[in-house]
Amino acid sequence: MNKIVQCVPNFSEGIDLKKVEKIVDNFRGVEGVKLLDYSSDKDHNRTVVTIAGDPEAVKKAVIKAVETASKLIDLTKHEGQHPRMGATDVVPFIAIKNMSDEEMIKLAKEAGEAIGKLGIPVFLYEKTASAAHRENLADVRRGQFEGMAEKMKAKEWHADFGPKDAPHKTAGVTGVSYRAPLVAFNVNIDTDNLDIATAIGKKIRFLGGGLRYCKAMGVALEERKITQISMNLTDYTKTSVYSVVELIKIEARRYGVNVVGSELIGLIPMQALVDCAEYYLQIENFSIDQVLEYKIME
Amino acid sequence: MNKIVQCVPNFSEGIDLKKVEKIVDNFRGVEGVKLLDYSSDKDHNRTVVTIAGDPEAVKKAVIKAVETASKLIDLTKHEGQHPRMGATDVVPFIAIKNMSDEEMIKLAKEAGEAIGKLGIPVFLYEKTASAAHRENLADVRRGQFEGMAEKMKAKEWHADFGPKDAPHKTAGVTGVSYRAPLVAFNVNIDTDNLDIATAIGKKIRFLGGGLRYCKAMGVALEERKITQISMNLTDYTKTSVYSVVELIKIEARRYGVNVVGSELIGLIPMQALVDCAEYYLQIENFSIDQVLEYKIME
Repeated sequence: MNKIVQCVPNFSEGIDLKKVEKIVDNFRGVEGVKLLDYSSDKDHNRTVVTIAGDPEAVKKAVIKAVETASKLIDLTKHEGQHPRMGATDVVPFIAIKNMSDEEMIKLAKEAGEAIGKLGIPVFLYEKTASAAHRENLADVRRGQFEGMAEKMKAKEWHADFGPKDAPHKTAGVTGVSYRAPLVAFNVNIDTDNLDIATAIGKKIRFLGGGLRYCKAMGVALEERKITQISMNLTDYTKTSVYSVVELIKIEARRYGVNVVGSELIGLIPMQALVDCAEYYLQIENFSIDQVLEYKIME
Repeated sequence: MNKIVQCVPNFSEGIDLKKVEKIVDNFRGVEGVKLLDYSSDKDHNRTVVTIAGDPEAVKKAVIKAVETASKLIDLTKHEGQHPRMGATDVVPFIAIKNMSDEEMIKLAKEAGEAIGKLGIPVFLYEKTASAAHRENLADVRRGQFEGMAEKMKAKEWHADFGPKDAPHKTAGVTGVSYRAPLVAFNVNIDTDNLDIATAIGKKIRFLGGGLRYCKAMGVALEERKITQISMNLTDYTKTSVYSVVELIKIEARRYGVNVVGSELIGLIPMQALVDCAEYYLQIENFSIDQVLEYKIME
């Protein structure tokens, strides 16, 4: 059985594209690794890479890329809008095919250990976190690169791998995790009243008492004169895409507005769409192994 | 760009499994070819093989399998419930990824030509048919193996490749086509009255004035004390899976019955499910390239 993982490392360089290419080169022409996408943002001064493939091959390539980034990126000179704590800021691993939770946690920890051996402290977060207060990336990253030397002095913020109580002088620290794939999904409603989109967003999201793995906010689509509930679904296996759509419809009724469309941003795992088809078509006993293309991947 | 085709050759042997294995061996361990499934039916005395992969590799493997079948299967001694005209009865090619209609037609014709060179007459049918009266497989196969010698004397039933006016003495003739993938889909309704399932089936199917690429019939699920509209969708890109579900719901209302479930039999192309998710979630501007696993296949 073919095992496939995805990895979405984030590097703190989005301006000097020569450096970016050198980092990304670690994912090119590597047996068992597919470079699916990479994009750099100047304002964020950050590059997000998406790769997928054989777990061991992906892990090794990522470790090499982290090493390259640690040589090319000097965080003492880094400015950008996006919060960051390391030259390689985060290395999240995502299960795609035939990978158990145990295997994913093992893989992420092995990657973390190897990064630690490069002299870069590693924080395990999300499903690999070593304590509850280290699960949330925002908590781990709080203080950013500049605050890490102070933060890491406290025992509860000692690193999981590598130097325990002090960041790498130029490469900072790196977060490593195994997490569920993120689904970026927006639903459009036929009103230009942003208050309504905002109210619906607040009602359906976890923070407002809504669905557990749903982050949501209202956004104006000014050209189209409509508004949007813009969402991140942080675990579609538990908070389904169809659930948020149906819940938005229920809330929208209260205002006499309608769902007029939606959009999926970037890549989405096949299972997230299969779940929706299964729900609406009322399919019994369906397995993703019945999807021809999925079967071919084996 | 990775090109992928599927091929579902049907061989007229379902009892002597040693022969079946020898035929299927042509698809094992072949670079670029994936053997997805094969199943033999004793009553039909027939084996259906599903393979997928690189177009050239799939084509070559199928030609070899046709040759093996022509040596092992003697149709003068073949009995089975399923209509058949050749040792290799049909060789339908299906586009999976990055294959244009033109490329598919070329591929199917090349396979047909090579089979013809083995001394086996070939009829091109469906999207590769050389005339309108040769599109429908049932018309092409009418008369079966036993009637082919007589049928092929007429010019309108001369073969497209190979010996023009007489079948192979023991291997008969082979149909080769490029066709849309078949989706076998059944919808369950909460009544044990078969007349209702039959009436709904008749109303939604092409023959009864319903959807163009829908074949349907009523079936009793006796153990569950419900009935089912059992369907073959012969071109899901035009007659969508969600269309038949919604149309069945509309018809079911007239009888006060409800859809209580459905089932997809065998393999289904990802796009067929993506189409349903897009419809029900009202997704705008979605591309199958956004499906992670599809992207990985490139």
